Amino acid sequence: MLSNIRIVLVRTFHSGNIGSVARAMKTMGLARLVLVNPKHFPDPVADARASGATDVLAEARICAALDEALEGAALVAALTSRRRDFAPPTFTLRDAMAELADRARRQEVALLFGAETSGLRNSELEKCHLRVEIPAAPVYPSLNLAAAVQVAAYELRMALLEGAGRPAACGELAVHEEIEGFYQHLEQALTASGFLDPAHPKKLMPRLRQLFSRTRLERDEVNILRGILNHMKK
Amino acid sequence: MLSNIRIVLVRTFHSGNIGSVARAMKTMGLARLVLVNPKHFPDPVADARASGATDVLAEARICAALDEALEGAALVAALTSRRRDFAPPTFTLRDAMAELADRARRQEVALLFGAETSGLRNSELEKCHLRVEIPAAPVYPSLNLAAAVQVAAYELRMALLEGAGRPAACGELAVHEEIEGFYQHLEQALTASGFLDPAHPKKLMPRLRQLFSRTRLERDEVNILRGILNHMKK
Repeated sequence: MLSNIRIVLVRTFHSGNIGSVARAMKTMGLARLVLVNPKHFPDPVADARASGATDVLAEARICAALDEALEGAALVAALTSRRRDFAPPTFTLRDAMAELADRARRQEVALLFGAETSGLRNSELEKCHLRVEIPAAPVYPSLNLAAAVQVAAYELRMALLEGAGRPAACGELAVHEEIEGFYQHLEQALTASGFLDPAHPKKLMPRLRQLFSRTRLERDEVNILRGILNHMKK
Repeated sequence: MLSNIRIVLVRTFHSGNIGSVARAMKTMGLARLVLVNPKHFPDPVADARASGATDVLAEARICAALDEALEGAALVAALTSRRRDFAPPTFTLRDAMAELADRARRQEVALLFGAETSGLRNSELEKCHLRVEIPAAPVYPSLNLAAAVQVAAYELRMALLEGAGRPAACGELAVHEEIEGFYQHLEQALTASGFLDPAHPKKLMPRLRQLFSRTRLERDEVNILRGILNHMKK
């Protein structure tokens, strides 16, 4: 189940943090690290900070785009402390990691962390199903990147240990690229029908993403929805 | 309640870790840092790593002895992954932090971390009531010091948030120096009686410490025990 979990770091600035993240992951049994446009990587500073977890760094995947990093993931959670208008629904870390662990017993899942200072962009957050908040002190909620990964990985491990005897979550969720394909299809159909004006798209697509991401779309449901879109076209 | 909690770092080697610990603490609302014989402190490296938590460093207390650092603490938990013969009973992090948080609603408590590589000495661990283990991956359980503090502080905060509506734990526990006074008294009485041979003390005192630390001695109980010891002397 741990091998179904990937940690995705987006635009990480300090390579030392990538090393610390690798160490934090390995202490909790996680091994799959994906880096989206890291500033410097590989880097000896990262290796030094990884301590006994340089194997996690050596096997890290580097991607140029978030979509590539999320391929195959049926559930995506993003850690961010800033609230946004069209973000996926917010969960505490404990609740979110319980759902992610439950899904990881059957399908691949991803946990996403933004850049140290700038965090995640709205367009990135829209690709996630859960927005996760660590219940930090309001006066200084600024956890170091690796510290946030450590706490999240710990909660994931605790959730997996606790749920060890339970039956796996049922229903096969659609994975990231299937859902993105549906959104593209939907956007084309809405544009063709004249409902969506590409010159003034307003917030229609973010709103629809928000709606569907709450439902945890199953693979069969995505096929039905795309069937409807194809039918509308004719 | 957060102000009743102190984090005690013993013989920390890397001052950067002390800074990272300060940051980890502040993100979870903790402010009281106590350093027992740190290698280098204060140190600009610590300030840099503390980021927005340099106030925690500025107010840190430096002690030459662990007993001084634990003065006034009614419950002491120690994080260590190594098992020992005469250690206090072992708890998972979640359970230990629940008890520590509960006690912090009424009295002062301390959470103890040893040096990065060498950890805590047996004589230090014997002064604690709970030995705490983070359920890390057996193949690589080596959390960075600040990462361990982050996870522990997070669990403390979660336990305090969850228990916010509950009545405070009852019974006033004896604090560290009262318990140490009792142990000295006990050791003297046992030596005077001839039961304890100072030349061959074996493991008598560690065993007795282990026994009493399990019971969470109340202040009144310590007074009764010392009364008995005084009476034996006559």
